[in-house]
Amino acid sequence: MNAADARAVGELLDDFARLTEPGPGVTRLAYSPLEREAHARFAERMQALGCAIRVDEAGNTIAELPGTDPDARAIGTGSHLDSVYEGGRFDGVAGVVAGMELVRLLVEGGEPLTHPVRVVAFAGEEGARFGQACLGSRFAAGLTPRPLVDELVDRDGIPLADAMRALGFDADRAATARWDPSEWAVFLELHIEQGRVLQDSGAALGPVDSISGSTRLSFTLHGRPSHTGGTPMAGRADALAAAAEAVLTAEQLATDHAHRGTRATVGRLEVSPNSITTIPGRVTFSLDVRDVDADRQRSATTEIVSRVMATARRRGVGVDVRLIADTSPVILPLWVRNALVQAAVSGGSSYRVLSSGASHDAQMINTIVPTGMLFVPSRDGLSHVPEEWTDASEIAVGVDALVAAVRALDAQLAAARDERVAAGR
Amino acid sequence: MNAADARAVGELLDDFARLTEPGPGVTRLAYSPLEREAHARFAERMQALGCAIRVDEAGNTIAELPGTDPDARAIGTGSHLDSVYEGGRFDGVAGVVAGMELVRLLVEGGEPLTHPVRVVAFAGEEGARFGQACLGSRFAAGLTPRPLVDELVDRDGIPLADAMRALGFDADRAATARWDPSEWAVFLELHIEQGRVLQDSGAALGPVDSISGSTRLSFTLHGRPSHTGGTPMAGRADALAAAAEAVLTAEQLATDHAHRGTRATVGRLEVSPNSITTIPGRVTFSLDVRDVDADRQRSATTEIVSRVMATARRRGVGVDVRLIADTSPVILPLWVRNALVQAAVSGGSSYRVLSSGASHDAQMINTIVPTGMLFVPSRDGLSHVPEEWTDASEIAVGVDALVAAVRALDAQLAAARDERVAAGR
Repeated sequence: MNAADARAVGELLDDFARLTEPGPGVTRLAYSPLEREAHARFAERMQALGCAIRVDEAGNTIAELPGTDPDARAIGTGSHLDSVYEGGRFDGVAGVVAGMELVRLLVEGGEPLTHPVRVVAFAGEEGARFGQACLGSRFAAGLTPRPLVDELVDRDGIPLADAMRALGFDADRAATARWDPSEWAVFLELHIEQGRVLQDSGAALGPVDSISGSTRLSFTLHGRPSHTGGTPMAGRADALAAAAEAVLTAEQLATDHAHRGTRATVGRLEVSPNSITTIPGRVTFSLDVRDVDADRQRSATTEIVSRVMATARRRGVGVDVRLIADTSPVILPLWVRNALVQAAVSGGSSYRVLSSGASHDAQMINTIVPTGMLFVPSRDGLSHVPEEWTDASEIAVGVDALVAAVRALDAQLAAARDERVAAGR
Repeated sequence: MNAADARAVGELLDDFARLTEPGPGVTRLAYSPLEREAHARFAERMQALGCAIRVDEAGNTIAELPGTDPDARAIGTGSHLDSVYEGGRFDGVAGVVAGMELVRLLVEGGEPLTHPVRVVAFAGEEGARFGQACLGSRFAAGLTPRPLVDELVDRDGIPLADAMRALGFDADRAATARWDPSEWAVFLELHIEQGRVLQDSGAALGPVDSISGSTRLSFTLHGRPSHTGGTPMAGRADALAAAAEAVLTAEQLATDHAHRGTRATVGRLEVSPNSITTIPGRVTFSLDVRDVDADRQRSATTEIVSRVMATARRRGVGVDVRLIADTSPVILPLWVRNALVQAAVSGGSSYRVLSSGASHDAQMINTIVPTGMLFVPSRDGLSHVPEEWTDASEIAVGVDALVAAVRALDAQLAAARDERVAAGR
């Protein structure tokens, strides 16, 4: 069996990185023509490697390499091909490229697996466009009820259903994208870490034990816009000053001793009328609270909301709060993680088990198929920015571990099946 | 002599309010075609009343009603016809309309003055478009050197010189708009208060004793954009959290006991990349510091800058600070203010002497011609917003005081001149 080819991985990454809107970094939004182009590129390559291709009604593309046993359930791997606005070239793409390289190695290695291997490119993983992350994998996991679809609108006012229709997908039929769990044995997602734990600890690989949940809110503060010169400090209802307290409240709460592991961030903030000489009359901002502990995630959110309310009341500023999205943290199954740890060990790669701060497709898929995640290092932890970086050779190390884990799981699952058959179960 | 006609005043205000870009309130920006249309409307009306019209190279429109003495210096009044983005219909316009009604009353009253009366519509008073306020009156006062003109650019990247050229004005010749102080005896500006001192004290008129200076800065904070989930609280350089501290620092400093009368405001703030799931990497914000005490204005500004620097350093965030504009407070001459106070008293109107928090054309003109200002009430102090409001009848009370002050100054200046002539001086 050959090792993964860093140059081939690098070329695939370059190829996808070219599919971007103009501007810094990569902009290839959820349910955009550019995302579909990336899926088509993926399908074409996988077809050339002998895979059967299926695109479901949610826009997920699934490439299947047959195994020797036609009745065996699939071993899945993959990630997504969309990006945030002005993001990087590795988030999501690394995992799809790893799956592509895995299949190339399996095909060229000439030792077919018992189980079919399915490489999945999920659609619309990033919440940047529609506010809700993991749209494609949510459809696959049956987690997106139709009423939710109807709520989602991008910042240009385009509803998700319209964006899907323009690409040839029918939101009314997207529920058909739901996977039949009996077809799948296990799923593995390789992803860049988007943090600096691996870099700081000098580890090459990061099998993931848990994935943070995320609660996202949108606040609108209503103050009193008036002239900066004519309005004494005492008579003000400054929506930005109230928002500034909210930003610091979220930071303080997530930093105190009761909240180790909580991360609370105001990433988006908009001021109106946004003029040098007018006291801000309206400020809208987002709050993203993440935690690997579900209770702490919700109680931290509630505490921040009540503090912001109190601040606003004291300042004579009105508040509207709206829930944008809420996902619970998950613990990934130990037996799948152990296969990844074993693959790192047998390949002689240093590893560190860690939790994921970011949401991932793996989190959704794990609700219906036992799922594992494997991180590769992110330089300086930078992500969702043009400077996001992972060397192709670091991804190749991950691919080698992925191949080893898939081979081991293939053997392990086949053996378990043989045992069940022998026992007449 | 007739009293001012509130209905006529209201009709003029309505007329100007129609000249706006679509959207809430009035948007009639500095050096825009709509501003020129307002000037043309003003010129047409004033010509019909028998005035001679002159438009200078800075875009100021001056309407002169001749007096009986061809050698007498002018008594000036007026204000501006441009607005902020989505502003109100009174700021500036009230003072021009007051001048128009003054001339109508003088013409129809049939008792000509000794001195010519010049009603001025200044161009580009609002700093909203180019960052620098009082552009037209600064040219008139000789306060705008050519290099400053070349620095000014609007948010669409249009340089002031280009905007002027598109309207038929030549920035290279704008210096010729400078007034010859020997032609002017005195200048009076009527304006809405843009605060709530008059409303709260129940006074109809507000002769102004001083005008706040304003120091305006632009800050850019450079943090480290990274994923909100993948980045622990401890490893962050959040540009928005640093900016939030800056907003509160400015507010706190202006509210402490050492800074009664100081107003410090962050009115404009922009976040990049402004995404829910990315820690803000860059924040740009404005700071506007106003005071009637020049030393306190500058020391407060310096103190805020140094505190913001310290905050940023502690957070590992970089800072750029740029001075946008800096004007000193002014004390207006007592003898002119006394004429306004006397006019209020003789007209039986309640008045309260107060200082102006906002900058005004009067501030610039006072550097070359003795100048007075008269405020009329602003409902709830709202200004620079669509809700800005002053009843036409309240402006009419101001016009009556303006007429009385102009008549009194005309007589007083004529008597002083006669005395000088008699004394052979």
